[in-house]
Amino acid sequence: MYRKYFDPLDYNLSADFRLTKLSDLKGRGCKVPRDVLHRLLEGLQTADKNGYGDGQHHQGLMPESKPTPVVGIGLDSCVIPIRHGGLFLVQSTAFFYPLVDDPYVMGKIACANVLSDVYAMGAVEVDNMLMLLSTSNKMTEKERDIIMPLILQGFKECAEEAGTTVQGGQTVINPWLIVGGVATAVCTQNEIIIPENAIVGDVLVLTKPLGTQVAVSAHQWLENPDRWNRIKSVISEDDVRKAYQRAMNSMARLNKIGASLMHKYNAHACTDVTGFGLLGHAQNLAKHQKHDVSFVIHNLPIIAKMATISKACGNAFGLLQGTSAETSGGLLVVLPREQAAAYCKDIQAQEGYQAWIIGVVEKGGRTAKIIDKPRIIEVPAKDTEGELW
Amino acid sequence: MYRKYFDPLDYNLSADFRLTKLSDLKGRGCKVPRDVLHRLLEGLQTADKNGYGDGQHHQGLMPESKPTPVVGIGLDSCVIPIRHGGLFLVQSTAFFYPLVDDPYVMGKIACANVLSDVYAMGAVEVDNMLMLLSTSNKMTEKERDIIMPLILQGFKECAEEAGTTVQGGQTVINPWLIVGGVATAVCTQNEIIIPENAIVGDVLVLTKPLGTQVAVSAHQWLENPDRWNRIKSVISEDDVRKAYQRAMNSMARLNKIGASLMHKYNAHACTDVTGFGLLGHAQNLAKHQKHDVSFVIHNLPIIAKMATISKACGNAFGLLQGTSAETSGGLLVVLPREQAAAYCKDIQAQEGYQAWIIGVVEKGGRTAKIIDKPRIIEVPAKDTEGELW
Repeated sequence: MYRKYFDPLDYNLSADFRLTKLSDLKGRGCKVPRDVLHRLLEGLQTADKNGYGDGQHHQGLMPESKPTPVVGIGLDSCVIPIRHGGLFLVQSTAFFYPLVDDPYVMGKIACANVLSDVYAMGAVEVDNMLMLLSTSNKMTEKERDIIMPLILQGFKECAEEAGTTVQGGQTVINPWLIVGGVATAVCTQNEIIIPENAIVGDVLVLTKPLGTQVAVSAHQWLENPDRWNRIKSVISEDDVRKAYQRAMNSMARLNKIGASLMHKYNAHACTDVTGFGLLGHAQNLAKHQKHDVSFVIHNLPIIAKMATISKACGNAFGLLQGTSAETSGGLLVVLPREQAAAYCKDIQAQEGYQAWIIGVVEKGGRTAKIIDKPRIIEVPAKDTEGELW
Repeated sequence: MYRKYFDPLDYNLSADFRLTKLSDLKGRGCKVPRDVLHRLLEGLQTADKNGYGDGQHHQGLMPESKPTPVVGIGLDSCVIPIRHGGLFLVQSTAFFYPLVDDPYVMGKIACANVLSDVYAMGAVEVDNMLMLLSTSNKMTEKERDIIMPLILQGFKECAEEAGTTVQGGQTVINPWLIVGGVATAVCTQNEIIIPENAIVGDVLVLTKPLGTQVAVSAHQWLENPDRWNRIKSVISEDDVRKAYQRAMNSMARLNKIGASLMHKYNAHACTDVTGFGLLGHAQNLAKHQKHDVSFVIHNLPIIAKMATISKACGNAFGLLQGTSAETSGGLLVVLPREQAAAYCKDIQAQEGYQAWIIGVVEKGGRTAKIIDKPRIIEVPAKDTEGELW
C-alpha cells in the first residue's frame, strides 16, 4: 500500500527535478472557466441545449425524442447507438498536466481518470484505450527518456488492471507535459446505466474521499517556505506527506468495482467527481434527472487533516463548500435507500476501501446543495502505523 | 472553391493577430523524433515488437497468431475485435497546433486529418468523434471568444460532412493552442481493409498532391523579409497565396470517397500521408505487407510551384525526397493494376479532384523508395482564372 516516492536521484536526474514543474498552472488553473466553456461549446450543441459536464468531459443528454438512450455533450461519457446489433458506443477523453511528481503514478492517475467517465455510465468492459502524450520542451533529453517511459508504464499497467489495453495514441512536443487518453466501450443497453432515474427517497453514496487537490497543493508547499509557513501551525510535514500518499493512492485507484456493483444494487444514476468538485458534479447530475428531485449532501468524507488545511487557508480551496477540484475522484452514486449500505459494504469487502452515504434525494428542482454545517468524516478516522488507510 | 481569407479586422481583432503564432514550433517541429518515439513506445508494445506508425498515430499489427484481423500500434488506426457480434473497433486520435491562420479552416483540417486514419483502413462510417481542444494562454479573452468558436465550427461542419457528429471531448488551457480529436468506427469485418495484401504488379495511387508544408511555410515567409528574399526570385506573392489556398483546400478535404472506392476497386492496402511524408508512410506500409514486395515511386504530384520553392531552399523540406511532412494528406492506395485508372477516374467523377498513379509494387524486402529522378506533376497543370484546381 505504501509506495516509495519517486526520487530523481535514483535515476541520476538532478535532485530538483519535479514533474509538476513541467506546467505553469496548478490545480484548476488549467481549466477553462465554466461559463467560457459553456459559450465555446454552444456550437456543438444539439437543438435542446442541454447543460454541460465538468469541462473536461463535455458530454450531455440528447433530445428525448430519440427512441434509444442517447447521451451526448453534458455528462461524463457519451452514449451513442451504433449501426450494428443494438449496441452503444460509450466513450470519453481527458488529458492532464502533471499534478504529482511520481511519473509512474501520474500515468496511472491519468488512465484511472479517463476510465472513470466510462465507469460512471455503468460500463465496466472497456474495449480499447488510446493514449495522448506530450513531452515537454523544457525537459532535457535525458529527463524525457527516463520520465516518459515511466508515465507510459503507469498508464499501461492501469489499463491492464482495468482489463483493457492501449492500442494507439499520439505523442507530440508541447511546453507543458501532457498525459491523457481515450476510453471506449461498446456495450449492450443493459450494460449501461443512463444517469437520470433518481427518485425521492434515494440516497447518495461517494466511493472515494475528497481533498486530493488540497493534499497535492500542500505537498508542493513543503518546498515553498512562504506557503508552508501559512499552514505549518496546523499540520506536520509528515502528515502532509501521508495525505499526499493517500491522494495518489486514491487517484490511481479504478472506479471499476464501484461501477460494476451499481448493477448489482440497482443504481439510479451516477457521475464521477473531478474538476468541478463534489457539488459541481452533483449539480450537473441533478440537472439531468427525469424526476423533480434535488440532492442534499450532509456528509463530507475528506482525506485526514485536509479539512484543517482548507480552513487554515480561509477555505480558498472550497473544500467544505464542495467546489474543490478533484482528480480521478470517486463515483457519486444514487442508490435506492435499502441498497446503499450493502453497496458500500460490498466495495469494502472487495476492495478494502470505505464508501460513504453522504446525502439524500428529496423532492426539488433538479439542483444540489451541501447543508450548512456538513459532518466532516476524516479518512481514515485513525492512523495505523505502516498503513495508508 | 475560392474562399476569402480569415481577416482579423473583420472580427475587430488586432491586425497582426495570427493563429499560427499561438505555437512556437512549426511543421515537423512538434513531432517527437522517430527514434525517440520508437523507444518511448516500446513499453506499449506487444511481444512481437512491430514497427511504429507515423508518430501521430502509433498503431501496428498484432501477432499473426490471432484468429481475426487485429491491428494495434504501428498503422494509421487500431482495429480491435470487440466482445459483441463479430464487430471491430477502428479508432484513431491526433492533435495539432495551428498551421494555418484561418481558425475555421484549421478546425476542418484537424477533423479531416483525424478521420483520415480511419478512412485509411477502409472504414467509412464513423460512429462518433470526440474533440480535443486547448485555448492558448497567450490569447486575450476577446481573441479566445472569437477564435475558438470558429475552430469548433470548422471541426463540427467537417464531421457533419463526413456523416458523423462530435459527442464529447475536452477543453483545457495550454501555452500553445491545440485542436484535435478522436474518430471511432464500429465495423463488420468486410467494412475494413487490413493494409497488408499488396502483391507484385499492383500500382500505387495517391489521392492528394504533396507540398502542404511547403505552401504553409512559404505563406508565413510573406511576413518574414529574410525568408521571403530567399525565394522571391522564383515565385510571386500571388502564387504563394494561391498555393496556400490550395493547401488549405486540400488539407480540409475528406478522404472518405477515396476510402469508399477502395472497396469498389478491391484495394490491397492503404495508408494516409501525414507527418513522415510520402516516403515515410510508404515505407511503413511496405513493412507491414504479408508478401515479399517493395514499393517504387516514379511520380510526385505536387501543388503547383512548390517543387520550385523546395529546390530554391536547397531541398530543406525534403519534398522531392518524399520526406516533407504533410498534414491531412492523401490516401496512398495499393490497387490491382487493372483497377487503378478506374479508381482515379471515379474519384474525379465524384469529387472533381485528380488522383494519380505514382508507382508500382515490385518483388522486394518490404521497403519503399522514390526513383532517382521522379517525374514532378504540377497540380494543377495550368492556372484557371477564378478556380483553385
